[in-house]
Amino acid sequence: MSYARQMLSTLQRNNSVSADALVAAIDALSDCSQACSADTSADLREQDLAEMVTCIRLCLDCTDICDATLAILSRMTEPDREVTRPLLESCIAICDSCGAECERHAKMHEHCRVCGEACRRCERACKELLTAIK
Amino acid sequence: MSYARQMLSTLQRNNSVSADALVAAIDALSDCSQACSADTSADLREQDLAEMVTCIRLCLDCTDICDATLAILSRMTEPDREVTRPLLESCIAICDSCGAECERHAKMHEHCRVCGEACRRCERACKELLTAIK
Amino acid sequence: MSYARQMLSTLQRNNSVSADALVAAIDALSDCSQACSADTSADLREQDLAEMVTCIRLCLDCTDICDATLAILSRMTEPDREVTRPLLESCIAICDSCGAECERHAKMHEHCRVCGEACRRCERACKELLTAIK
Amino acid sequence: MSYARQMLSTLQRNNSVSADALVAAIDALSDCSQACSADTSADLREQDLAEMVTCIRLCLDCTDICDATLAILSRMTEPDREVTRPLLESCIAICDSCGAECERHAKMHEHCRVCGEACRRCERACKELLTAIK
Repeated sequence: MSYARQMLSTLQRNNSVSADALVAAIDALSDCSQACSADTSADLREQDLAEMVTCIRLCLDCTDICDATLAILSRMTEPDREVTRPLLESCIAICDSCGAECERHAKMHEHCRVCGEACRRCERACKELLTAIK
Repeated sequence: MSYARQMLSTLQRNNSVSADALVAAIDALSDCSQACSADTSADLREQDLAEMVTCIRLCLDCTDICDATLAILSRMTEPDREVTRPLLESCIAICDSCGAECERHAKMHEHCRVCGEACRRCERACKELLTAIK
Repeated sequence: MSYARQMLSTLQRNNSVSADALVAAIDALSDCSQACSADTSADLREQDLAEMVTCIRLCLDCTDICDATLAILSRMTEPDREVTRPLLESCIAICDSCGAECERHAKMHEHCRVCGEACRRCERACKELLTAIK
Repeated sequence: MSYARQMLSTLQRNNSVSADALVAAIDALSDCSQACSADTSADLREQDLAEMVTCIRLCLDCTDICDATLAILSRMTEPDREVTRPLLESCIAICDSCGAECERHAKMHEHCRVCGEACRRCERACKELLTAIK
């Protein structure tokens, strides 16, 4: 059981958002942020470095937006829709862009394949949470 | 001259966003993040601690969202509108909420007055940048 | 298998640090950062709020130092000992302080018990990595 | 007057660390983090990209360690020496490495010259604070 799940189970929550959607998003954001950090670094080692610049840029932005969204969600408060909705939308947009770019390199670079998968899982988890808090 | 301005002046930018709006947002986000960190800590020292809980929560969220927005803007790339627009909207919403809460405590606590001012300046700078990149 | 493990397995590493120690530290840092964010927020809901101030402060610092250490380690480069050693030492110190404070509240607050456990696990994983890179 | 200075002046501090050394470090850390983010991005635009990889890696690590140190110091609490000392040592080490690498590129790339200056100023400010809290 993840720590996010354990922490959530200790709270007397009176929260409109399902615990499952929240924990899934927290876990996926954490994985995506780490995968993007590792992929940035792996891209910088590649021979075809000039081809990897867009991937590096998108991974850097994706890490920063996932980290902020992760921090907000980890506090597990009743979401302020005016803040959380656009933040999730921004996160979904960068995970989509970054995931698509990683997929372009997936056959050449296994690290991009794994990172692309983390981005897509994060995109889906944020979409499901966005639906849940609307 | 701030480092944001100096760094920007070294780039051959072919960027649709005005340098002034970008530098103003970077400086205001950096100030707001720091003011909110300091205010969180100052709130935790107050006698009327139970009254300060909402202020602490909003300052924590405001720091995280300002930090992510600051990181994205500091890279000074041509903005991806699908990502940057909702991120700025989220930042504007939290600066508005956090600024309003700080203003409620401004007469009692000078640190809240200063923090509220930093939030309002950040809110304005992000609104102007949002208009500029639309 | 965690994404940290998957990403690491895609790299042709010529790195003196064992993959097991690195992955264990990455996973423990990520869990500890999230547990501290959640615990900060849970502390702010408690009736005995004045008793929780030290716990809140330590959790805030612990999150920030774990996040930086996590970012550095997630890049999975050959460690620069001059940078990584004191960073791990700082992380071990804050995990120890924060873990001890959480344990003080563990009987009263289940969220502190879970967070204290995450801090102790992170402290151990960072100590093992520090030994491995010395 | 910077917000760090304004916030500090609102606190009844009974703190052994001089306000000047603290504010100087906060301002220098904030500038250095932003300069490194901007320099990472500017490096990625250069023709001699393969030459810039070490600079990019050091700037990424420097941003993360400066951000954590900035967050801890912005809370303006009495420092816990066991945590703050090694954190400052780590920050001094990465600012030194990153500053030296930026200086190597300073004649070719003005953005590296400006970033190297921000790193050196941050290194000095952290050294002075480290002396002050010993």
